[in-house]
Amino acid sequence: MNKDILEMLEKKQFSEIKATIKQMHPQDISSIITTLPSHFQGIVYRLLPKDVAVNVFENFEIPFQETLLNSLKSDEVIGILNEMAPDDRTRLFEELPANIVLKYLALLDESERKIAYNLLGYNEDTAGRLMTTDFLELQENFTISQAIETIRITAPKKETIYYGYVISPDRKLNGVISLKSIITSEPDDVVGELMNTSVICVQTDALQEEVASVMAHYDLVAIPVVDLEDRLVGIITHDDILDVITEEDTEDIHLMGAVTTTDRSLLDLTIWDSVKRRLSWLILLIVLASFSTNILTMYQDVLSTVVALSFFIPLLIDTGGNAGTQSATITIRALATGELKKQHRWEIIGKEFVSGLILGLMLGVLGAFQAYFTSQILLVSITVGISICVVVTLASVTGTLLPMLAERFKLDPAVMAGPFITTIVDIVGLITYFEIAKLILRIN
Amino acid sequence: MNKDILEMLEKKQFSEIKATIKQMHPQDISSIITTLPSHFQGIVYRLLPKDVAVNVFENFEIPFQETLLNSLKSDEVIGILNEMAPDDRTRLFEELPANIVLKYLALLDESERKIAYNLLGYNEDTAGRLMTTDFLELQENFTISQAIETIRITAPKKETIYYGYVISPDRKLNGVISLKSIITSEPDDVVGELMNTSVICVQTDALQEEVASVMAHYDLVAIPVVDLEDRLVGIITHDDILDVITEEDTEDIHLMGAVTTTDRSLLDLTIWDSVKRRLSWLILLIVLASFSTNILTMYQDVLSTVVALSFFIPLLIDTGGNAGTQSATITIRALATGELKKQHRWEIIGKEFVSGLILGLMLGVLGAFQAYFTSQILLVSITVGISICVVVTLASVTGTLLPMLAERFKLDPAVMAGPFITTIVDIVGLITYFEIAKLILRIN
Repeated sequence: MNKDILEMLEKKQFSEIKATIKQMHPQDISSIITTLPSHFQGIVYRLLPKDVAVNVFENFEIPFQETLLNSLKSDEVIGILNEMAPDDRTRLFEELPANIVLKYLALLDESERKIAYNLLGYNEDTAGRLMTTDFLELQENFTISQAIETIRITAPKKETIYYGYVISPDRKLNGVISLKSIITSEPDDVVGELMNTSVICVQTDALQEEVASVMAHYDLVAIPVVDLEDRLVGIITHDDILDVITEEDTEDIHLMGAVTTTDRSLLDLTIWDSVKRRLSWLILLIVLASFSTNILTMYQDVLSTVVALSFFIPLLIDTGGNAGTQSATITIRALATGELKKQHRWEIIGKEFVSGLILGLMLGVLGAFQAYFTSQILLVSITVGISICVVVTLASVTGTLLPMLAERFKLDPAVMAGPFITTIVDIVGLITYFEIAKLILRIN
Repeated sequence: MNKDILEMLEKKQFSEIKATIKQMHPQDISSIITTLPSHFQGIVYRLLPKDVAVNVFENFEIPFQETLLNSLKSDEVIGILNEMAPDDRTRLFEELPANIVLKYLALLDESERKIAYNLLGYNEDTAGRLMTTDFLELQENFTISQAIETIRITAPKKETIYYGYVISPDRKLNGVISLKSIITSEPDDVVGELMNTSVICVQTDALQEEVASVMAHYDLVAIPVVDLEDRLVGIITHDDILDVITEEDTEDIHLMGAVTTTDRSLLDLTIWDSVKRRLSWLILLIVLASFSTNILTMYQDVLSTVVALSFFIPLLIDTGGNAGTQSATITIRALATGELKKQHRWEIIGKEFVSGLILGLMLGVLGAFQAYFTSQILLVSITVGISICVVVTLASVTGTLLPMLAERFKLDPAVMAGPFITTIVDIVGLITYFEIAKLILRIN
């Protein structure tokens, strides 16, 4: 497809391009324009019919939106900024430098400027920042035919018309009526009698992950957003929530892998950016790991007496780390999806203790055999076996407990994942190992 | 709310319960019923109006659906099974034992039974299994007023009426028209002229994560599913896709933490289930880790000559493991979200090499200082420093490369995460460490 368009561009067959593009989904047009050589991008964009153009623009990645705006004439920029959906515009403004935002705000019509100002006033990652102000407003005393007439007139400007929101004169949200029930009702029925008055909504300061979980819970296509005085100020639509879920999961996964998350794409990051998002974590962890060095120096006499003990250090700490990582992973995810509720925590910790112990016993036997096979020293292999058993049990409990504790102290549980747990389990594991060794091998 | 209902139940105030429930969202009614004492659950369920009852039933968790069906009378079961949305019914049947499914299939009307048989015929986790057959069908030659009339009649039975699908006499999907464009068009306009003919759809055998990514890409509320002959057989709606995204992310996160994923809830798992989902991974990893034991025995002369070298083994392998985990996490997530495209892989590997080297240099210096502080032996600390630098660089490249290789060989990249990478990096790290030690400390 790209190739055809490129060929047409080189032959300057603009009307053919127009005809080809006309059939396509705005998202596909965006993708094609992005992959064209930069001197052609503006040309193709300008060939788009005006209503399609804004839609295509909204589908570009933010950095590309920036670049394109810079290359367009000022009346074109004015057109785009005024026509964009308020929520997509907020997303763009969020990423732009303050001086550019001010310049662009000045280009907006007064009403749009007011909307943009308001939306930017909400905190990042809250419902207020996600919402659009283009929702379908209906009056309680409308008949169904009046409602349909309103929809017919206002639909082109609205992001979704699947729900109509019924608001009182002081803009309080009184009820909601679905397009489905509008279309299946009689023309003379009254909106106020058909609407649902127990509306599921969120407040402007709700966190985006809360919004996502409410919408997923109730299978909503759109959710109304009210301010602190219960006045309807916007709606959030299903497509934004898909992005939020993916974004939140990415954030959790990154945190679990001890990397600072970023919403910029991997390709856009400079090498220095990549170093920065990893460095502080690695330093924190290396400082924690230095405790294990100190522990080993404490036991250096034991180590010099039985050098064979050192052979099993990686085996022991890896196995402990892996068991801890497993438990932490299960717990963190169950906390994130809301599956693990407060009242069940002790039950889960108890279960993890027992299954950790069973796993520890099995792996301990396996480890002891391995150790005997390598060292041929019975007492060393018993030490290794018992230590693995203890460490796996402890690691399973620690991996379950620490994410729960983190949540209790308002930290993100995802911090308490593999890398962190591994380092903590190391310290505990090494002390266990050498104390057991001293006892079994009778070293003082 | 639960408390009130419980009180009313105890006082047998059934009409009050009916009135209270009437105001509530089906999802909330489901939640309340689930938390009631089991002898009350059936009673409240039977108080629901018939159309609400099915909706409430669909919102129960699958294990609860099973239990409830067992406790209901056979005509009630017949009612529910025939009225349920086909996709929710498939989800239930998937989890039931074969003999129960056969019994339930026999209770279905012939047409519903045919639908249920068909849906169960598709592979798990494919579009065919996810879809519902209740979609809105329109004819190409319908006028808008005929279309609206069709919608009015059929809407109550349809999962979504936001799109109408236009199909040919041989059931091929010819076009799609949104409810928005139906409602904004004139009564005499013809569907065939308004519909969009380049329909975005998926095939029945498309994997659910592909479906999710297409729907997210195009911001769709519903997507049509066609069979291998391009005949329309069903649609998948936005709410199912939210579940798919969460499910897929959970699967990835579990795999990254070296646990076998399960769709059963944490509380439903027995201790033996918890052991099973972790055991094979731990055994695999402990066997891999035994290589590090062998490496250490190979270098036992070096170790006995300079015992201090053993102090830094945990520090070294933890740091290597952490760096590898970071790179693997970033790569795996970028592959999962589709952010990391084939053509950019070498560029990313190159970048990771350079940022790994920079991180390695910084951490190497830090590690060398720590080692000098602990051991007071300059040559040992130089060995530690250089080894950390080499290991961090190698780990960063390995962590980036292995998930990409896994994908190339049709494995899930998420396997190549923290635990696996750590164990591999250990082996490489220990060899590096002792070879450098031999060189610098001049030991043979």
